Amino acid sequence: MLRVLKFGGTSVGSLDRISNVANIIKKQKDQNDDLVVVVSAMSGETNKLLAYAKHFSSTPNKKDVDMLLSSGERVTSALLSIALNEMGYKTISMSGAQAGIKTDDDYTFAKIESIDTTNIKNCIKDGYIVVVAGFQGKNISNNVTTLGRGGSDLTAVALCGSLDADICEIYTDVDGIYTTDPRVVPTAKKLNQISYDEMLELSSLGAKVLQNRSVEMAKKLNVKLVSRSSFTPDVCGTTITKEENIVEKPIVSGIALDDNQVRVGIYKVIDKPGIAGSIFSKLADEDINVDMIVQTVGVDGLTDLDFTVPIDDLIKTKKVMDSFKDSSENIDYNEHITKVSIVGLGMKSHAGIASKAFSAIANEGINIRIISTSEIKISMIIDKDKSKRAVKALHSVYGLDK
Amino acid sequence: MLRVLKFGGTSVGSLDRISNVANIIKKQKDQNDDLVVVVSAMSGETNKLLAYAKHFSSTPNKKDVDMLLSSGERVTSALLSIALNEMGYKTISMSGAQAGIKTDDDYTFAKIESIDTTNIKNCIKDGYIVVVAGFQGKNISNNVTTLGRGGSDLTAVALCGSLDADICEIYTDVDGIYTTDPRVVPTAKKLNQISYDEMLELSSLGAKVLQNRSVEMAKKLNVKLVSRSSFTPDVCGTTITKEENIVEKPIVSGIALDDNQVRVGIYKVIDKPGIAGSIFSKLADEDINVDMIVQTVGVDGLTDLDFTVPIDDLIKTKKVMDSFKDSSENIDYNEHITKVSIVGLGMKSHAGIASKAFSAIANEGINIRIISTSEIKISMIIDKDKSKRAVKALHSVYGLDK
Repeated sequence: MLRVLKFGGTSVGSLDRISNVANIIKKQKDQNDDLVVVVSAMSGETNKLLAYAKHFSSTPNKKDVDMLLSSGERVTSALLSIALNEMGYKTISMSGAQAGIKTDDDYTFAKIESIDTTNIKNCIKDGYIVVVAGFQGKNISNNVTTLGRGGSDLTAVALCGSLDADICEIYTDVDGIYTTDPRVVPTAKKLNQISYDEMLELSSLGAKVLQNRSVEMAKKLNVKLVSRSSFTPDVCGTTITKEENIVEKPIVSGIALDDNQVRVGIYKVIDKPGIAGSIFSKLADEDINVDMIVQTVGVDGLTDLDFTVPIDDLIKTKKVMDSFKDSSENIDYNEHITKVSIVGLGMKSHAGIASKAFSAIANEGINIRIISTSEIKISMIIDKDKSKRAVKALHSVYGLDK
Repeated sequence: MLRVLKFGGTSVGSLDRISNVANIIKKQKDQNDDLVVVVSAMSGETNKLLAYAKHFSSTPNKKDVDMLLSSGERVTSALLSIALNEMGYKTISMSGAQAGIKTDDDYTFAKIESIDTTNIKNCIKDGYIVVVAGFQGKNISNNVTTLGRGGSDLTAVALCGSLDADICEIYTDVDGIYTTDPRVVPTAKKLNQISYDEMLELSSLGAKVLQNRSVEMAKKLNVKLVSRSSFTPDVCGTTITKEENIVEKPIVSGIALDDNQVRVGIYKVIDKPGIAGSIFSKLADEDINVDMIVQTVGVDGLTDLDFTVPIDDLIKTKKVMDSFKDSSENIDYNEHITKVSIVGLGMKSHAGIASKAFSAIANEGINIRIISTSEIKISMIIDKDKSKRAVKALHSVYGLDK
């Protein structure tokens, strides 16, 4: 069995934690599995280096930033290899470039274009545990590039796909994906299995654990992902796999909260044809990811438009919206909202899921501002101060506490 | 004019010191010079990483050690490039591999085999300041290698030679080479010029500044070296160049002290033919660098042998010497000695230099235990507790105070 294991920054955050990771690897290797290990920089290291760069420039040259940041993962890979070697294993540390990871030229946010696995495959054949510095590759000009946030996960998933490995285990300090945020609902349960699509829709639950980019790539490459913890390695994690592999499809898998949205309202828009289209295309030009949209045409023929954008894009959004001031009566912004989402594969085949949610929310006396639905998700915008109550009610009404 | 500048660990030891280095470079670039800059890791960084490695293993895998240690210089090169870029210069940071430095496979102590300067030359042509991570290269298997102690100086000298650059300036926290150690003789003077051979013989004076490996390579490649300080960049340093370039050849250039030698004595050696040869070949087999040797054959036909070895090799030396116990009456070791050397090109053409030294030492009532001479050097072994007095007397008798 060929496994790709990936250990995040907290898992390798100190020398003792690296020893702990070496012990996890030892257990797997002693079962005669072939192993490729991908590591992040020790926690805090990337931020420290980035702060150094910012000391000199608020907009440091991206090529240099990649030279700078890529060093953190190289250090961890070397240290872990040294630790494993001392335990008696044949090990080798590799940079992204040595692992054959070729990217485009988009420094600090490069995309993997191809992977030449010859070097890794030869080392595996020779019995080596291969320890790869995550988050990095090289471009056609032989310069080091980094893959952006979640880049080490991407490295692991892409290697798993290219090597046709059996499993990709992502170790963090959390032992899997829960039915909802356990800080909000203490009775939240860990899921054993979840589909890629559910995971993508539950991204706010998994954000600390797995970024959407990696899940999307895992889906594309059909990589079986496991989210587990290096702090409790004996606990089974959550397997993220394709829908067909999930035997018992729950109606609702989880309830996600997203506090990082702002609701934008633009009211009594003069009903010029295409004005909504022009708002959204201008927002898209600024790379603002518009999420939920509701349009209401009143009896007066004027249009009200509500939508949400990420809170980090609020300033950019306001700039765009200002250019539509004269075409409307009023524009407002509400940061005191939360998006609550119900996600489950079973929604496809079960009716009445939504109405159950709406009554549960109504019973709590909570107003729903915006609703949007997809095949496997129902999302609602509600007031932020009532969001925890809403999540608890939903978690209970769908039987996730049990 | 094409200059290679090299900044050591103390010179780039903090973010403020890196800014200072950027200002030194700015001044030179503004004179329209082309610049290749070689940097060390920030001071303390290499030792920190090495301590991390030693945490896991007392004999860490050398290949991994090189992956680990090479990251320090990469960080500095990226940061310096970012700082210069912010000041408005076109800059690029390069790893040793990107700078075209190809080495053999001797991890942690690799030798430079060749340099492909295409990449650097193209960047210079395009107006870039090229900032190279020192101390490293890559071998034929595309693995990163490091060059051992003084490796960043070697990088700079080798690049200067390969690029046929005009000068190689080595910046440290010392502003040049002195006639002797200023801590011993406060009237010691900074030398303006010195030949490669003198520098090699005065290595103990320059050890903090320039290692013999780099001076030897500079001599071989005919690289004009300048030792100067990044802390006082307006002070001229010491130029190390070939003898022909030195107009006024001083009789004595400097007085060196070496406290790191041990005198080994083996007495009444049974006069088997070749026993001295067999002692020295066994020491050589152990990589012990025997320095000064005196052999005395007594009237009884038995031989006394005195020689010095580096103090770091004492344990290895004792082990070798033990195998000759039965062939001699007695073996002893004296750590309380110092080697004092008088170095100067003028010795070649002036007689009486040695006798002047011997009388100066005798006038101080100091015994000389061993003497050895070369074309441009006279070395004497004396008691350690009298070494400072000896150096002061010699410094004065050769007029170096003036």
